[in-house]
Amino acid sequence: MSPLSAVVEDNTFDIVKIRQDFPLLNKSIKGRPLIYLDNAATTQKPQIVIDATNQFYSNSNANVHRGAHTLSDDATELFEKARSSVQGFINAKHSHEIIWTKGTTEAINMIASGLAQSHLKPGDEILISAMEHHANIVPWQIAALRSGAKLMVVPINEKGELIFSTFKKLLNKKTAIVAMTHVSNALGTINQVKEIVRFAKQVNAITVIDGAQAVAHCPVDVQQLDCDFYAFSGHKLFGPTGIGVLYGKEDRLEQLPPFQMGGEMIKSVTFEQATWNELPYKFEAGTPNIAGAVGLAAAIDYLNSIDRVGAMLHEKRLMNYCLALAQSMDDIHLYGTAENKTAIFSFLMGDSHPSDVGTLLNQQGVAVRTGHHCTMPLMNELGISGTVRASFSLYNTEEEVAMLFAALTKVKTFL
Amino acid sequence: MSPLSAVVEDNTFDIVKIRQDFPLLNKSIKGRPLIYLDNAATTQKPQIVIDATNQFYSNSNANVHRGAHTLSDDATELFEKARSSVQGFINAKHSHEIIWTKGTTEAINMIASGLAQSHLKPGDEILISAMEHHANIVPWQIAALRSGAKLMVVPINEKGELIFSTFKKLLNKKTAIVAMTHVSNALGTINQVKEIVRFAKQVNAITVIDGAQAVAHCPVDVQQLDCDFYAFSGHKLFGPTGIGVLYGKEDRLEQLPPFQMGGEMIKSVTFEQATWNELPYKFEAGTPNIAGAVGLAAAIDYLNSIDRVGAMLHEKRLMNYCLALAQSMDDIHLYGTAENKTAIFSFLMGDSHPSDVGTLLNQQGVAVRTGHHCTMPLMNELGISGTVRASFSLYNTEEEVAMLFAALTKVKTFL
Repeated sequence: MSPLSAVVEDNTFDIVKIRQDFPLLNKSIKGRPLIYLDNAATTQKPQIVIDATNQFYSNSNANVHRGAHTLSDDATELFEKARSSVQGFINAKHSHEIIWTKGTTEAINMIASGLAQSHLKPGDEILISAMEHHANIVPWQIAALRSGAKLMVVPINEKGELIFSTFKKLLNKKTAIVAMTHVSNALGTINQVKEIVRFAKQVNAITVIDGAQAVAHCPVDVQQLDCDFYAFSGHKLFGPTGIGVLYGKEDRLEQLPPFQMGGEMIKSVTFEQATWNELPYKFEAGTPNIAGAVGLAAAIDYLNSIDRVGAMLHEKRLMNYCLALAQSMDDIHLYGTAENKTAIFSFLMGDSHPSDVGTLLNQQGVAVRTGHHCTMPLMNELGISGTVRASFSLYNTEEEVAMLFAALTKVKTFL
Repeated sequence: MSPLSAVVEDNTFDIVKIRQDFPLLNKSIKGRPLIYLDNAATTQKPQIVIDATNQFYSNSNANVHRGAHTLSDDATELFEKARSSVQGFINAKHSHEIIWTKGTTEAINMIASGLAQSHLKPGDEILISAMEHHANIVPWQIAALRSGAKLMVVPINEKGELIFSTFKKLLNKKTAIVAMTHVSNALGTINQVKEIVRFAKQVNAITVIDGAQAVAHCPVDVQQLDCDFYAFSGHKLFGPTGIGVLYGKEDRLEQLPPFQMGGEMIKSVTFEQATWNELPYKFEAGTPNIAGAVGLAAAIDYLNSIDRVGAMLHEKRLMNYCLALAQSMDDIHLYGTAENKTAIFSFLMGDSHPSDVGTLLNQQGVAVRTGHHCTMPLMNELGISGTVRASFSLYNTEEEVAMLFAALTKVKTFL
C-alpha cells in the first residue's frame, strides 16, 4: 500500500468542520501554521468547552451542595449533570461511582493510598506492566512499602506489547492488585484490558485501569471491561485542566477509606472523631473544580455530537500514513509497533538526540514531545533515554502528517 | 452612630465601577436583582479572570515543563509567572515556596499527611481552635490517629474570639503543631495570627495557617507572619475553582515527604524505587491545573489594580451598617461579635430554622448560606445546629445590606 492510498480510502470524516471547532489550531508558530502533535500530553479544547467555562462563571457560579439559594442550586445541578455525563460516557452503572479528582494521577494515588490501608497485607503482590507511566508505578511502590506488599512487573515484547503468557504466569493467589494502563502513552500500545481483567478476576485481584491515554481514542465501557477502577483526565479528553475522574465499582468504593478529609466528605464531626459521607462525596473533600466538571461535560457533549467511529478511523488512517512515510525514511527507528495501537509515533532519528529533533521540528511549527514521557523504567527496558513522540488527535490531518515528514527531512540536513 | 452615618463617611471606593467588572452581579433571581451574600462559600469572578481562562485555552494551551515546543514554553511561562504572582501577593521569599493544590483542603491534607509521617510522634500535641473548619480539624484527627499524637482545642469566648490566655497555657513542649484559621468562616473572627505564631515558636511548634477566609479580605505577608505553612483557595479570591495554594517555608517543604506520586514530582524512577524532584515540583504530581493557575494570577492582577485599602474600608462600612440594622431588629441573635472581624453576618432569627430563613430570603433574590458551615464542633459549642450567614465581598453595596434587612423584615411576616 502506498502512502497515498492509505490516505484516500473511506475518508468521510469532516475534518475541515472539526478543525473549525478548535480555535487554537489556527495559531502560527514562528511564522508558520502550528502543527500540534503533542496530544498525548494534552489536547486542544473545542469552543464549546471554552464557552461552557465562560458561561458557568458568567451565569451560574456558586458553591455546590451547600447553598440555600437558586444560584447554588443551579451550580449543583450543572455539576451533578456533569457527573451523569461522565457516567454515560463510560457506561458506569451508577452516577455515584464517578468521583471527581484533579486528574488521573490523583485518582490512582487515591486508590493506591486507600488499598494500602484497607486491603494490602505483607506478601501480597501488585502487578503492573513494563509500559506504565510513573503515575501508575510510584503510587504502587509507596503502597507496597507501606503494606509490605511486593511490586511485580509484566514484561513487554519487542513490539511494545504486554507478554500475555507471562502475565498469566505471574498471576497467583498472592496477586492482590492488577494495575495496568489501557493505552501506553509512550508507545501507543492498546492493552487487551478486558482479557487482563478477566484473568485477574480468576485470582480475585482488584483491577485498576489507567485510562488517561485511552478515553480520547477508544470507546470505554467500564461495565463491559468489568474493571474495579478506571481513571482518566479531562485535559486529555478535550476538557479543562485540573479535572479528572475516578470510576470505581460501588462496593469497591464503599470499602475504600477516604483520601482527603474536610468539608463535604463528612457526615458528622466532633473534636473527637468524624464519620464519612455517602458516595461519591466521601472522596470529594473541599470545594470541587465545579467549572472544570462543567467543562468536561461540554467536552463529552462535543464527542457525542461528532462521528466518533469516523474519528477513530481517521486517527487510524493518520497512523497508517505516518507509518508508511516513516518506512520511506531510512534512519527512523520506531518504538511501539503493536498490532493494536493508537496514533502515537514514537521514534529516534539516526543517532540524534530526541530533544535536538524536537527543537528543529519546533522551528518549523511542528509541536512534538521529546524525552522519557514519564516512563523512565520503560526507556530503561528499551535501552534508550527517550524518544521523539508525535501523538495525533482527531483534528489532525494527512497534510500535517506529510508536513511532519517534510520537516523531518529538513531536520536531517541540520543534524 | 445611626445606620445612615455609618454609610456615608469616607466613601471614596468606586463601587459602581467595581460591580461592572463582575458579569454575574447583573443576574436576576426569581425576577429580582441577585443580591449575592454567599461570598464566604465562593466569590464571583471579574471579567479579566474569565477572559484569562478563555485566552489561555484559545492561544496558549499546552502541557507545561515537558514540551520541546513553543506552545509548551508559552504555557510554562504563564504557569510559572502565575506562581510568581502568588509569591508577590503573599510576599513569600521564594517562588518555589508556592505549591499549587486544588484548594485549601488539599493543602492542609498535604501538610497533615506529611507531618504525620515525618514529624509527629506518640504523645505529641496538635493544637487547633474551637472555630476551625472541618478541613482544619479532620486531617489532624487522622494525623493524630496515625502517629499517636493528640488533638487539643483552644476554646473561644462568647464573642467568638480565641481565648488567648488559654492558648498560651495549652502550649507546651509536647505541642508539635499549631494549626489555626486566620479568619473564621462561620463567625468572621480575625485571629491574631502573628501573635499565635510568635508564641507557637517559643515551644518550637510548626505553624499552619488556614487562610481560606482571609486572603480576599486582609493583606497577608507570610514573612511578616513568620508561619511555616499558609493555605488558601483561588475560588474564594475571585479566581477559578480547582486551584489553590500551599505556601511553605523552604526548609519545612524540604523536610515534608511528597503527598501524591507520579509524573513531574520525581527525579528518577526504576521499578525498584523513585527519588523526588526539587521544590516546588516534589508536591505537584501529574498535569497541574494550568488554566486555573493562570486564572488565579488574573484575579491577583485584578486585586492589585484596584484600591485594596478602599475595598477593606468598604467591607468594614458594610459590616458596620449591617450590625447597626441588625440592632434595630429585636429578634436577631448574632454569632460572632469579635472586635476584629471580617464582613460576615452570622445569625438566627427568633426561633426559626436557618434554612427556612434562607429559603424565604432566596425568594426575594438574596443569596445566603445556612447550616453548620462545615464547623459542626463550633456549632456544638454554641449549642445550635447552624446559622444563617450573609458574607460580604468588596463588590457588595450598602443598598444590598438595606435590601437584606428589608427582606428579613418580610421573612418575619412569613414565620
